[in-house]
Amino acid sequence: MTQELLLQPPLTSFSARMQQQIQFILELDKLKHVMRRSMLLDQSRTENDAEHSWHLCMLAIVFAELAGPDVNIARVIRMLLIHDIVEIDAGDTFIYEESPHAANQNMRENLAAQRIFGLLPDDLRDELWNLWREFEEKNTPDAKFAASLDRIQPLFLNYFNQGGTWARYGVSSAQVKDKQRFIADASQPLWEMVETLIADAVERGMLKT
Amino acid sequence: MTQELLLQPPLTSFSARMQQQIQFILELDKLKHVMRRSMLLDQSRTENDAEHSWHLCMLAIVFAELAGPDVNIARVIRMLLIHDIVEIDAGDTFIYEESPHAANQNMRENLAAQRIFGLLPDDLRDELWNLWREFEEKNTPDAKFAASLDRIQPLFLNYFNQGGTWARYGVSSAQVKDKQRFIADASQPLWEMVETLIADAVERGMLKT
Repeated sequence: MTQELLLQPPLTSFSARMQQQIQFILELDKLKHVMRRSMLLDQSRTENDAEHSWHLCMLAIVFAELAGPDVNIARVIRMLLIHDIVEIDAGDTFIYEESPHAANQNMRENLAAQRIFGLLPDDLRDELWNLWREFEEKNTPDAKFAASLDRIQPLFLNYFNQGGTWARYGVSSAQVKDKQRFIADASQPLWEMVETLIADAVERGMLKT
Repeated sequence: MTQELLLQPPLTSFSARMQQQIQFILELDKLKHVMRRSMLLDQSRTENDAEHSWHLCMLAIVFAELAGPDVNIARVIRMLLIHDIVEIDAGDTFIYEESPHAANQNMRENLAAQRIFGLLPDDLRDELWNLWREFEEKNTPDAKFAASLDRIQPLFLNYFNQGGTWARYGVSSAQVKDKQRFIADASQPLWEMVETLIADAVERGMLKT
């Protein structure tokens, strides 16, 4: 039904630009179906990418003061809003997974970005593509801070959920630290919090040494 | 488990401010359970508030150019991120509902805002409270544009879903226009799009006259 209506009047009477914008917005509805490994805190189900993206933006607002002075929180929030959109096509890849699926993650996500951001008018496509690449490459202060929050939110969901995916998939504290160490470069106070929670998770048996 | 860990070391060794920030972030997880009336486009289930909030932010990014020059899109996005948090306590109120539940919506939402934003340190509490009140009162250009997107997203979910909640609850085009008319004041191009889709929805029998 959705696709049919896009090809009929009155939609076809809208500017090409507005038709593309609407088609992209409708496509994004699918992110609500992309399931992650992390359980919600009440353990009723796993979280999806749309909810996760929203929650990360709220971490950005609440922890903004812990970012360096060169971080632009409004840009961080834009990055976090779009960072998982590629997973509509590429699916969620569990961070500790080693498999053929994980090995070709970059290729799958690049193809997804081409298709999905490609639904937009060129200027918006380029803007979101560049923002997504910046996030993925983690070279700028904004991207490092955004990526730190993308690690800290599932850490909360695990720590406050009897170990969550750490316990379920037998993850070790060395693996977690390895994936999170770059946080030290984005925010010393957040890194100290993360180290403390990891150490305590080991003590409580949520996380292997 | 969540509440217990907040009351034990090492959490109790964190600054009071960080403890409050973490508690607020954990509380927000509940927004993923607040269900709205709108169905997702694949009709598999209704949408929740966290997903809805994320989707609205994406409309803000994509339709930013249709806002007036006095609109600050970064502020609009912050407003949209927090606008439904009160529904953790107050629940979602269907926009066309007339009931005792709908009648005391303001009171319920004010109490919810006091409790939930009140989990935060005072400065953050005041910032989010003021942003939420501004959204609710729809008097500023930012709030009018944010509220417009909050109407347009469910309109898309209805129009591209065989009428969705309009058809299910027997809503009339006059009711829809009445709730959406203020969009004309926020963005003339968005209002023209909305009027066109409403008229076509009537033609297609998705919406009563």
